[in-house]
Amino acid sequence: MASSILTSSKISPFPPPSFLKSSLFLPSTSLHFPSSNPHITFPPFPSKSLAKYLLISSSLNPHPSSSHRRPPYIPNHIPDPNYVRIFDTTLRDGEQSPGATMTSKEKLDVARQLAKLGVDIIEAGFPAASKDDFEAVKTIAKEVGNAVDENGYVPVICGLSRCNEKDIKSAWEAVKYAKRPRIHTFIATSGIHLEYKLKKTKEEVLDIARNMVRFARSLGCNDVEFSPEDAGRSDREFLYEILGEVIKAGATTLNIPDTVGINMPGEFGQLIADIKANTPGVENVIISTHCQNDLGLSTANTIAGACAGARQVEVTINGIGERAGNASLEEVVMALKCRGEHVLGGLYTGINTRHIVMASKMVEEYTGLHVQPHKAIVGANAFAHESGIHQDGMLKHKGTYEIISPEDIGLERSNEAGIVLGKLRRHALRDRLKELGYELDDEKLGNIFWCFKAVAEQKKRVTDADLIALVSDEVFQPEAVWKLHDLQVTCGTLGLSTATVKLIGADGREHVACSVGTGPVDSAYKAIDLIIKEPVTLLEYSMNAVTEGIDAIATTRVLIRAETSHISTHALTGEEIHRTFSGTGAAMDIVVSSVKAYIGALNKMLGFKEQYPTKDSIKRAPVSA
Amino acid sequence: MASSILTSSKISPFPPPSFLKSSLFLPSTSLHFPSSNPHITFPPFPSKSLAKYLLISSSLNPHPSSSHRRPPYIPNHIPDPNYVRIFDTTLRDGEQSPGATMTSKEKLDVARQLAKLGVDIIEAGFPAASKDDFEAVKTIAKEVGNAVDENGYVPVICGLSRCNEKDIKSAWEAVKYAKRPRIHTFIATSGIHLEYKLKKTKEEVLDIARNMVRFARSLGCNDVEFSPEDAGRSDREFLYEILGEVIKAGATTLNIPDTVGINMPGEFGQLIADIKANTPGVENVIISTHCQNDLGLSTANTIAGACAGARQVEVTINGIGERAGNASLEEVVMALKCRGEHVLGGLYTGINTRHIVMASKMVEEYTGLHVQPHKAIVGANAFAHESGIHQDGMLKHKGTYEIISPEDIGLERSNEAGIVLGKLRRHALRDRLKELGYELDDEKLGNIFWCFKAVAEQKKRVTDADLIALVSDEVFQPEAVWKLHDLQVTCGTLGLSTATVKLIGADGREHVACSVGTGPVDSAYKAIDLIIKEPVTLLEYSMNAVTEGIDAIATTRVLIRAETSHISTHALTGEEIHRTFSGTGAAMDIVVSSVKAYIGALNKMLGFKEQYPTKDSIKRAPVSA
Repeated sequence: MASSILTSSKISPFPPPSFLKSSLFLPSTSLHFPSSNPHITFPPFPSKSLAKYLLISSSLNPHPSSSHRRPPYIPNHIPDPNYVRIFDTTLRDGEQSPGATMTSKEKLDVARQLAKLGVDIIEAGFPAASKDDFEAVKTIAKEVGNAVDENGYVPVICGLSRCNEKDIKSAWEAVKYAKRPRIHTFIATSGIHLEYKLKKTKEEVLDIARNMVRFARSLGCNDVEFSPEDAGRSDREFLYEILGEVIKAGATTLNIPDTVGINMPGEFGQLIADIKANTPGVENVIISTHCQNDLGLSTANTIAGACAGARQVEVTINGIGERAGNASLEEVVMALKCRGEHVLGGLYTGINTRHIVMASKMVEEYTGLHVQPHKAIVGANAFAHESGIHQDGMLKHKGTYEIISPEDIGLERSNEAGIVLGKLRRHALRDRLKELGYELDDEKLGNIFWCFKAVAEQKKRVTDADLIALVSDEVFQPEAVWKLHDLQVTCGTLGLSTATVKLIGADGREHVACSVGTGPVDSAYKAIDLIIKEPVTLLEYSMNAVTEGIDAIATTRVLIRAETSHISTHALTGEEIHRTFSGTGAAMDIVVSSVKAYIGALNKMLGFKEQYPTKDSIKRAPVSA
Repeated sequence: MASSILTSSKISPFPPPSFLKSSLFLPSTSLHFPSSNPHITFPPFPSKSLAKYLLISSSLNPHPSSSHRRPPYIPNHIPDPNYVRIFDTTLRDGEQSPGATMTSKEKLDVARQLAKLGVDIIEAGFPAASKDDFEAVKTIAKEVGNAVDENGYVPVICGLSRCNEKDIKSAWEAVKYAKRPRIHTFIATSGIHLEYKLKKTKEEVLDIARNMVRFARSLGCNDVEFSPEDAGRSDREFLYEILGEVIKAGATTLNIPDTVGINMPGEFGQLIADIKANTPGVENVIISTHCQNDLGLSTANTIAGACAGARQVEVTINGIGERAGNASLEEVVMALKCRGEHVLGGLYTGINTRHIVMASKMVEEYTGLHVQPHKAIVGANAFAHESGIHQDGMLKHKGTYEIISPEDIGLERSNEAGIVLGKLRRHALRDRLKELGYELDDEKLGNIFWCFKAVAEQKKRVTDADLIALVSDEVFQPEAVWKLHDLQVTCGTLGLSTATVKLIGADGREHVACSVGTGPVDSAYKAIDLIIKEPVTLLEYSMNAVTEGIDAIATTRVLIRAETSHISTHALTGEEIHRTFSGTGAAMDIVVSSVKAYIGALNKMLGFKEQYPTKDSIKRAPVSA
C-alpha cells in the first residue's frame, strides 16, 4: 500500500511531454506532490486558443463557490476528495500570542464572524487555561455551535487539551454543548522536545497518546483530533507508529504541525505524503496541516501540504500567533480560490471570502495586533496604487496589475463623498453600517448616532473610515467598570504637563484626580492610576489616524500587563504567564483617545475572570499527565 | 540540449529508494525542481546516528559564511554554482510604494547599510523618474559603488530604465561612476500587458528589447539586466524567443518577474526550469527571480526559483513594495542560511545577517512602512515569548521553540538595567551606540547626548530602546528648513483645543502662530500651516511608544502628500504621481512628537528637488520608446 501511494513522487529521468512545454497553461505538476487520493487528477489541458487568457480570467473571475457545494460533515471522511476543510485557530493559537488576550464576549464575536466566513472548524480555545477560557469555549459551543444555517452548515467547535485526563475532561465539558463538538489533544514527538521538555521516552509518549485519545472517545466525543507536536523535526518511523496507534484508539483527524516553522514547502509536502504512505489506517482519517511562519513560508507550506493530500488546514485570521504567527486564512483561502481549480488539482474551500475584510478588522481590533500596510490580501496597501494622473485610459483594464478584485474579499472602496449630515437619519446610518458589515442593536446604534453627530459638527466630511472608527470604539469595547467623564490637559515644550481626570465608577460615583507627568498621556494615566489603583505595566502604546486629513479621528491602542494577578497556563509550554490586555479608544483629540484606550484595557482586565484553581495549577507539572 | 536539462523534472511512477523513507533527514527532493547546473547535487545522506539532531543543529548553528567565500564578480557568470546573488531593490521597487519616498540622503544611508549587509547588487533607483532620483543613484554610485572592502567586495550599483534611449541614457549617466555599474531595462511581455498597456505587437516588443539592450551595451556598460515584465503570465514560446534575442544583444542577467504575484511556488520554479531548458544561450547568463507577494507566497516562490536554477534573487528589506510588496531579504536569506546546506542543495548567499535588524529598522523609519508584530524574522514578536514563570528549567534549551538565535540577525535583547546617568560619559554613550549598530559623527553624538540627559532627568531608567528612539530622531531626520522652538497646548473633553507654536525658519527668524482645532494635534498642525503655507494633505498618522512604561518616549510618524507640486514618473505604469513624504518625531510628550514629525515631513518635502523637465515628462508617452 505504501508504495502505491508514493507512486508519483520521485524524480524521473524522462522529459515531460511536449504539449506541456508548449502550453501557456501550467498544469499542477507545479508542487510535485501527488495526492494520495485517486480522485484528484490534473485538469485537462485546454486548447491554445481557449487558453490565451486562462491564467488571467481564472484569477480575475474565480467562482469556485458557485460550482461547488460544501460536502456534508463526517468527522473522519470528506465525501468530495477535492474539498479542503478550514480549521481556524485564531481564538486559540492566535489568542495566546503576546498581548492578544480577548474576553469571552470578544471571542464570541469573532466566532460568529468565523461562522459567517463558513470555516469548517473553530478552535475556540484551551479550556484548561483559565476559567475565562473555559467559559468562552462553552458559550461559543452553545451559541455558535448550534446556529445551523439554511444549508445545514454549522461549524465544528473544538477545544484544545494537553494529553492528560484533566485537560481533556475540561475540553469536553466546554465543547459538548455544540452540535458538532471536537476534542483536540496533542503531545510532542520530536527528540529535542522529548528530551528537554517532556523528559519522557518514546514508549511513554506512545502510551499517553493512545490512552488519552481513547479517554476522549470514552467521554462520548466521536470527533477527536490528535497532533504530534514538532512533527517537522520528529523521527519518521516513530511518527508513523504513534499516528497508527492513535488511529486505532479512535482519532479522526491527525494534525501535522511544523511547530517551529523550520520546514521548506517541498519538505513539508513530502512529510504529509510520507505520512499518508506509511501510517497504518490513514485512509480512515483526515490529515491536517499546522504551519508556523518563522521563515515566512507558512502559506506555501500549507498549500504544499494540501497538494500532498492534507484535507484540513489550520490557519488564523491575519496570520496571528506566537512569534511570526501561523499560516493566514486569507492567504491560503485566496490562493486556493484564485489557482485551486487550474493549478492545484481542483482543490477548493467552503469560505465566503466576502467576509474576510470584516474578520481581519475585528481580529486586529480585539487583539491589538495590527497588520502591516503590505500584508497580502488585507494590508492597507494590498489594493492601493500610487494616486496617479491616468494617461489616456492606459490602465483602465484593472487586470494589468490586480489579480483579486477588492469586492471579492468584502472591501468597499471608501466612499469619497462621505455622508452629509443634513440628510442623515438613524435608519440611513443603520443601512450604511450594514453595508459595511456591522449589524447593531438599537442601543449601540443610538450611541453611535450621537457620536456621529458630535463628529459631524466639527468635521466637514464624515467618511466610512470615520464611521468604522466610531463603531469600533462603541462595539469593540469591553463591559465598562470605569467610565471617562471629563479630561483637561495642558502640555508643550515648556514641560510640566498637567492632567485632570474625572471618572465614574461602577457604583455611579464621581472620582477626580490630577497629576503632572512627562507628557499629556503620562500625566493623564498617572491621574487615572491614582483613582483605579491597579498595579499594571504599560507594554505598548500606538495610535493611528484612521482617516485622511488633519481633523481625523485617532484610534489609540494600549497593551497592559497585570502585575499581581491574572495568571494563565500556556498550552504548549505549560508555563504560567501573566495575561496582557489591550484596549482601544477613538476620538478626535489624541489625548482623549489615549485615555479611553487605557480605561478600556483596565476595564478588560477587571472584567476578566481569574483562573481557578490558581494555586493548584502553579504547582502542576509543566505538561501532560 | 533542452531535454537534457529537463531530465529530472517529470513525475515518475517509481517509489523513492527505501533509505529516503527511513531517514530523519529530508533531502532536497523537497522542491522537486532540479537545478540545470550539474554542479548542484543533493548532499550525501548522513548516517542515522549522526543525523539524530541534524535538523536542529544545522538550524541553530548555521555557519555558511565561515565555510564559504564570496566568489569574484563576473557579470554573466558565477564561479561557484551554489552561490546565490542577492539583488536588493528596496531603493527602487520598495521606495515606489505608496508613501515610501526617501530623500537622497536617506537613500545613501540605506545603500551604505546594504553594503554592510553585503548585498551583491543594489538597485539604487529609477534615474529617469525625477532629478532627485537621478542624483540619489549618482551619489550612491560614486560613494557606495567605490567603497571596496578588504576582501575586494563592492556592490554592483544598478539603475532601472524602461526600454527607451532616454531612460537608458539617464540610468547610465547615474550609475557609470560605480566600480561595477549595471543597467536594468524592462518591457512587458504578457498578452494582457501588450494589449492594454503597451498596445504593441510581439514583434514590435521583440525589436525594442533587442535594440535597447544593444544600446545599453553600446554606451560602454558591460553588465546589462533585462526583465520581461509579467513573465508569470507571458506566452512561453515568446518568452524563450525574446530572452534568446536579448542574450544575443548582450544581456548578462535575465530577471523573471511574477509581476502580479499570481504564481504558486511549484509553478514559478517550473517557469525558471523551463526558461533554463529552452532559451538559446541561457548558459551564458544569470537567471534572476523577482516575486511579488500578492498571495503571500513571494518567499516560497523565490526559493523555488533558486532551487530551479536562478542564481540571483530580487528582494527588499522588510518585503516592502507596491501592494503586498516583494520577497523579503531577511526571509529569503535566513531560509537559505538555516536550510540551504542541508535541504536546498547547498545554496548560500554572501549576506552578513548580523546587520539585518539595523537595516530593517532604518527602512521602517525612512519609509514609514511599519512591520507587523508577527512579521517573520524582524517583527517585534518574532523572538518574543509570553513572559512566563519558568518552571524547573524546563525550557532552558532554547532550541525547543527557537530555530534562529536573535544574535544571528543582530538583535540584542534589551538591556534591562539600562544606563545609569551618573556613570555616563560621552564616550560611554558612543560605545553603547556602536554596539547597537550606530556610528555617529561628533556633532550628532553631541546632540544625542544632550537629548539623553534631558530624558534622564525625567525618567528613572533610560533603556536601549530609548536610545534608539533618540538616535532615530536625530539621525533619521531630513535637513532642517523649519525648526520647532516652542509649543504650548491646552485640550481635553471640554473641547476648544488651542495650540501656540513658535518656529525658526531657514533665515533664523522666529514665527509664532496660534490656532484652535478639533484636538491638540489638529490645532498645532493648523498653527504650523499658518506659518509654512504649503498645501499638503495628511494621509497617515501613527504613533508608537517605543519603550515600556507610561513615561515612554513616543515616536510619531506622518505621511503627507504635496498637492500642487512634486510630481514623479512611476516606473512600471508610466503614470505621473504626486509624491508623498513621511516624517518622524520622538519626544516624551506625544503632542511635541506629533509636531516634530509634521515639521520633519514638511522639511523633507521642501528639501526634495523637483523633477526636471516636468512639463515634458507629463506629455511623454506612457511607457517605452
